[in-house]
Amino acid sequence: MNDRPLHSLGKSYPREDGPEMVAGLSQFVEDIQRPGMLYGAVVRAGRPHARILGVDASRAAKAPGVACVLTAADVPVNSYGMVITDQAVLCGDKVRYEGDPVAALCAASWEQAESAARLVRVRYEDLPAVTGPEEALRPGSPRVHESHPTGNVVFEGSVIRGDVEKGFAEADLIVEARYRTVPQEHASIEPHITVAEVDPAGRLSVYVTSQTPFRIQADLARVLKLPLSKVRVVSCVSGGAFGGKHEIMLESLASLCALKTRRPVTFRMSREEEFTVSTVRHAFTIDYKSGVTREGKIMAVHVRSLLDGGAYCAAGNGVGAKGALMAPGPYVIPNVRSDFCLTYTNNGFAGAVRGFGATQTTFACERHMDLIARRLGIEPMELRRRNAMKTGDPAHSGDAITSCGLAETMDKAATAIGWDEIGRGRRSGRCRRGRGMAAMIYPVAGFGQATPAAAFARVNPDATLTVITGIVDVGQGTNVILRQIAAEELGIPFEHVHLVNGDTSIAPFDPGSTGSRVAHVGGLGVKKAVAEVKKKLLAKAAAALEAAPEDLDIAEGEVFVVSAPDRKKRLAEIAQNSYKAGDILLAEGLHHSKDMGVNKANHQGKAFECYVFATQCAEVEVDTETGEYRVLRLVAAHDVGRAINPMNVEGQIEGGASMGFGLGTSEIIQMKGGRVLNRDFRDYLIPTSEDMPGTFTSLIVEALEPRGPFGVKGVAEPSVNPTAPAVVNAICDAIGAEINDLPATPEAVLRAMGKVAGKARKRS
Amino acid sequence: MNDRPLHSLGKSYPREDGPEMVAGLSQFVEDIQRPGMLYGAVVRAGRPHARILGVDASRAAKAPGVACVLTAADVPVNSYGMVITDQAVLCGDKVRYEGDPVAALCAASWEQAESAARLVRVRYEDLPAVTGPEEALRPGSPRVHESHPTGNVVFEGSVIRGDVEKGFAEADLIVEARYRTVPQEHASIEPHITVAEVDPAGRLSVYVTSQTPFRIQADLARVLKLPLSKVRVVSCVSGGAFGGKHEIMLESLASLCALKTRRPVTFRMSREEEFTVSTVRHAFTIDYKSGVTREGKIMAVHVRSLLDGGAYCAAGNGVGAKGALMAPGPYVIPNVRSDFCLTYTNNGFAGAVRGFGATQTTFACERHMDLIARRLGIEPMELRRRNAMKTGDPAHSGDAITSCGLAETMDKAATAIGWDEIGRGRRSGRCRRGRGMAAMIYPVAGFGQATPAAAFARVNPDATLTVITGIVDVGQGTNVILRQIAAEELGIPFEHVHLVNGDTSIAPFDPGSTGSRVAHVGGLGVKKAVAEVKKKLLAKAAAALEAAPEDLDIAEGEVFVVSAPDRKKRLAEIAQNSYKAGDILLAEGLHHSKDMGVNKANHQGKAFECYVFATQCAEVEVDTETGEYRVLRLVAAHDVGRAINPMNVEGQIEGGASMGFGLGTSEIIQMKGGRVLNRDFRDYLIPTSEDMPGTFTSLIVEALEPRGPFGVKGVAEPSVNPTAPAVVNAICDAIGAEINDLPATPEAVLRAMGKVAGKARKRS
Repeated sequence: MNDRPLHSLGKSYPREDGPEMVAGLSQFVEDIQRPGMLYGAVVRAGRPHARILGVDASRAAKAPGVACVLTAADVPVNSYGMVITDQAVLCGDKVRYEGDPVAALCAASWEQAESAARLVRVRYEDLPAVTGPEEALRPGSPRVHESHPTGNVVFEGSVIRGDVEKGFAEADLIVEARYRTVPQEHASIEPHITVAEVDPAGRLSVYVTSQTPFRIQADLARVLKLPLSKVRVVSCVSGGAFGGKHEIMLESLASLCALKTRRPVTFRMSREEEFTVSTVRHAFTIDYKSGVTREGKIMAVHVRSLLDGGAYCAAGNGVGAKGALMAPGPYVIPNVRSDFCLTYTNNGFAGAVRGFGATQTTFACERHMDLIARRLGIEPMELRRRNAMKTGDPAHSGDAITSCGLAETMDKAATAIGWDEIGRGRRSGRCRRGRGMAAMIYPVAGFGQATPAAAFARVNPDATLTVITGIVDVGQGTNVILRQIAAEELGIPFEHVHLVNGDTSIAPFDPGSTGSRVAHVGGLGVKKAVAEVKKKLLAKAAAALEAAPEDLDIAEGEVFVVSAPDRKKRLAEIAQNSYKAGDILLAEGLHHSKDMGVNKANHQGKAFECYVFATQCAEVEVDTETGEYRVLRLVAAHDVGRAINPMNVEGQIEGGASMGFGLGTSEIIQMKGGRVLNRDFRDYLIPTSEDMPGTFTSLIVEALEPRGPFGVKGVAEPSVNPTAPAVVNAICDAIGAEINDLPATPEAVLRAMGKVAGKARKRS
Repeated sequence: MNDRPLHSLGKSYPREDGPEMVAGLSQFVEDIQRPGMLYGAVVRAGRPHARILGVDASRAAKAPGVACVLTAADVPVNSYGMVITDQAVLCGDKVRYEGDPVAALCAASWEQAESAARLVRVRYEDLPAVTGPEEALRPGSPRVHESHPTGNVVFEGSVIRGDVEKGFAEADLIVEARYRTVPQEHASIEPHITVAEVDPAGRLSVYVTSQTPFRIQADLARVLKLPLSKVRVVSCVSGGAFGGKHEIMLESLASLCALKTRRPVTFRMSREEEFTVSTVRHAFTIDYKSGVTREGKIMAVHVRSLLDGGAYCAAGNGVGAKGALMAPGPYVIPNVRSDFCLTYTNNGFAGAVRGFGATQTTFACERHMDLIARRLGIEPMELRRRNAMKTGDPAHSGDAITSCGLAETMDKAATAIGWDEIGRGRRSGRCRRGRGMAAMIYPVAGFGQATPAAAFARVNPDATLTVITGIVDVGQGTNVILRQIAAEELGIPFEHVHLVNGDTSIAPFDPGSTGSRVAHVGGLGVKKAVAEVKKKLLAKAAAALEAAPEDLDIAEGEVFVVSAPDRKKRLAEIAQNSYKAGDILLAEGLHHSKDMGVNKANHQGKAFECYVFATQCAEVEVDTETGEYRVLRLVAAHDVGRAINPMNVEGQIEGGASMGFGLGTSEIIQMKGGRVLNRDFRDYLIPTSEDMPGTFTSLIVEALEPRGPFGVKGVAEPSVNPTAPAVVNAICDAIGAEINDLPATPEAVLRAMGKVAGKARKRS
């Protein structure tokens, strides 16, 4: 960071695509029309675990309008997967969850395709299903993947730091509890949908909404056995992603049909398929054990997380590891052990969801902090303050925290909600008030390895700027913030930056809009490319201003001598003269942190680029007769590093907190015999505006990050994580009882108070 | 050039867009459909020269379906032009040719727009029209542009080398003649058409067929007063350009309507407008004077070219200068003076046309060579051989010719057509045979300044390559040859290269597909970018192969140690490992010749990148009773430098020769009182396949050019230039009389033979 005044950062520029989205003019994948388009349908297992004895698609192939029928034999390379290639485009030998695809076809209309799909006859031999992770681990349980070397254990690992046994021995009090989270739907309003078409030269174009178009491209190239240069993936306007638009789901089927028929083909998921086929948030069972001193100092933490991965690994190993690393929370703890075990089951497979493992372990951690506080008789915020991380402290992977605004988030959140005042409120009678707090640490980007970011930059003859990046905006508003970073770096007005992205045939490779990496790492890539082209401009300006390039800077479209700002020229003049001299102003830039790396044995090392922190506080009123409650106020204070676009940051905080609110209060997938029972938004309750807190306050804390572009860290995912524990802590405060399983439904509230019997509802 | 064997160059890979074009599936601008599209119509002057007293568009504005009416006052900056900003988007004070636009409107259908256009009332005060260049220069003639400082002389200049008067004094014979060429239509099968639309964020997208999308972008930004970052121009599949799709013609009107109505707007020209509005090839009147020795050595040449520029300058000054520089032909001449004078008239304005001035002066030169040969009694080919340029000789701008295959083109063409044998044929009776030859020099790119070329290159993780270039393919097949150059440079299969271009919001700036620059300069830009990314790959491979990067090379997708080719690795492995290490493989490259520059006083200096040469020979049979003739054989031997794609080179030669054939034999715009009389293909005769020579032979000569990429020079334009003189020389040989004015219609043949009276038809 330098100290020059900022011009483009810190301002709430509106998103360029905002007006068209509000006006209903955005072109979603659904809006793509092509003459001669074919419409797809997928034949799915409908049972959790079975051997396929035979597939007879002959009647379907002859059905009206049908152009093409696919079974496993039609897939050139029938395996893929983010980490383990355990998934088939079309299952040939076995199905492992009810959504597994067995056959696919396309026809002249959606209706004809669906009718024909019902004519495909699949003979199965049903196998006993593994319906939960405990069952998965039981000796003698059926194996979901016979060939997986560690049985139903997909992957396990441990974060080890210090000596937990020594730490427990030094503690005055050991606090243990078990916490459970349930699967959560991404619940994007736009279901998965794709259009694939092949041009006469044989080049495939696939239109999707995806956070990771280059992964889609790579997986398609793999399963179709095509070179990357023949596979173009275009990520279109997004109707929601939240981690759920990572994998090829329908794209390979649409592409195979398009390659076979040479016609455009579209596949989409129904809402029912969204609930039964696509990924969910991993259900965690977390055994949390802490050793603390009388004064509240945490000496040791041992966390054991058991994850239900469902039928396929997908991003599960990362979810397990990131969850484990965040499980001890934003606290300085000398002795940490955090184990995770990812299991295969015959449930719908879990994948990346906003918050990525840390959502679940943050819930456990922050509920556990309240438990400890109560046992020690220390005020919960005070307990957190005594252990809170600050800049320079080690994270649980041992790498130093390079910026930390945690204390400030606590101050701001507590002040805004009137923490002490609520604390003095009523805790008796039918309607009781309570207050809850949850703090959080969340990592930005990386995970033991750098996620590089690159961009092309081009300064036009009028000194406007074009940036080409592989980063896609799936609704978070990253397009606007990358433009702000580019404008700031070059020193031109924000309006003069144009961003090009979304098309794998144009943009530099990018790992994707995942892991809250875009603002920080993506921003560094854009900044680097712009800095390179700026160098070329300054060299030109140096000649014109008779000064050394290093003595020049650019602001608001003018290049000037830093020591004598009156010696200046319009940047447009410099750019135009450069073009006239034949010097086209181009550059490429690549950011790639070279210091990343962890020891897989203990997950110690430089695991992430940097860390963000937050504190959320909730005030609730609980009706102790019905268990119903209302969140009166929710305050979310987030340390995001430099807030590039405050409006956008607030939008991210509100959006994330809404998702966390649903996780904490109402969202639950009900399963029976390996099948999802609630398959629509009538029975799966995402919060509506009526359910939301009475007031919601977003507060921004800017602990500037030295590694980031202009101090930027990030905000996309973490806002989801503290909400559920803050709300549940508030409920527990109000009712004076513990709720350790999500979600905290009215029934769960009554159960916690001993007013109804029975166990908490959980998966299967 | 290095000596390694070539893998991708020299092979006739088919064009990627060939199948879809043949199948009728190409998406032309005409095929763009948008909901709510508006259709445009232009109110044009319909008179050659008049003052505008008033425009009343009130009735038109109220006509059914009309959404928007424009007059001059609606244009933010109402002037533009390639060199001189002498042209208005909509005329406000004066009209200067019959096609000048006075008002424009758009409506819900083409029919409503045309009906409404007829309701616009314009009051004019007619002014006397300047109908030809001689009249333009006459003292007291009306002035086309009152404010132009040199009256109706747009621009004049001279090529001066040696001392022509001294040269004439040393000569044994002075030969003088006047040659005239006529305007020629580009006659693209696709008329000018555009679609403009504005997104809700205010960004303009304009779809066109253009050779120079960045010029269109720049001119639109100027007249609309928008930053370049808000103006996107997409050049679509082309239905022909030939120099005629350089300027904004309809784009500014469509854009203004789109900006006003916020709806998509399309404008197109009717075929009649194509004939009366868009640019034509400049008519030249050329006074050609040569001094030669008895042995046929040319001692001096003085050429004076008078050009009819029509109402606006457009590219006229370049046409005049390039024509003047090529006028002395591919011959070593110690004393040269070549003057040109470009005039304003009230004819349709002239612009760039394939061949660009040299077409006209090559006709004069090569007819003149035959005249000299006849006067000296030297066989015409022999006369040419005695004076022919070779490598190392100076061009007429004084710069050394770095590669010259002229002699070889003469050998090949003469052999192929059986030159000597035809020479012994019959020259009497009603049907007579004749032979004609024309040689040519043509410059590649530049014109006193470098035309830089840039590209972005990206190697994908599977070692396929993406190249982003600003160069557009308007039908010449440059996309395929740039891919070949890229494949050759990187050492991967041709099929693994993907090219992205056509969209100004993505590609690096490019001056355009003009001046036969693409293969040579564009190729150098692509080669440079690929070489840069190759360096990065070789650095990675060096570590893997334990060798120095400079000892490595890549061929057919494998990287190997040059001195020990068995030590090798798959390039895909190197690329994949690079990505795994976070090193995204990107580069940008810029080619820009630093040695270009001419003295404007005498046009001496490094004027062009390099030169191509050609010889075309024709055999004709003339019916001396009717004047009708048939070209029995046409042979075209072209030195193109390295022939990247022989099939493509042959296609260019055939296409160019067809255009030259039309110029030589049938194409003439008939004018009366400043208005074009023949406004369609029924009355304006382009050659059909029936008219074409009985046999056509393309022959490639490869004089490798040290400045070019892999020895490449170019071929796009020059193939048009020798055809008309070769055919006319053959006719003159057959009939034993001179035809010095184009085209050589049957009427002109009879006139030359004294069988009909009167002057050759010419413009006005």
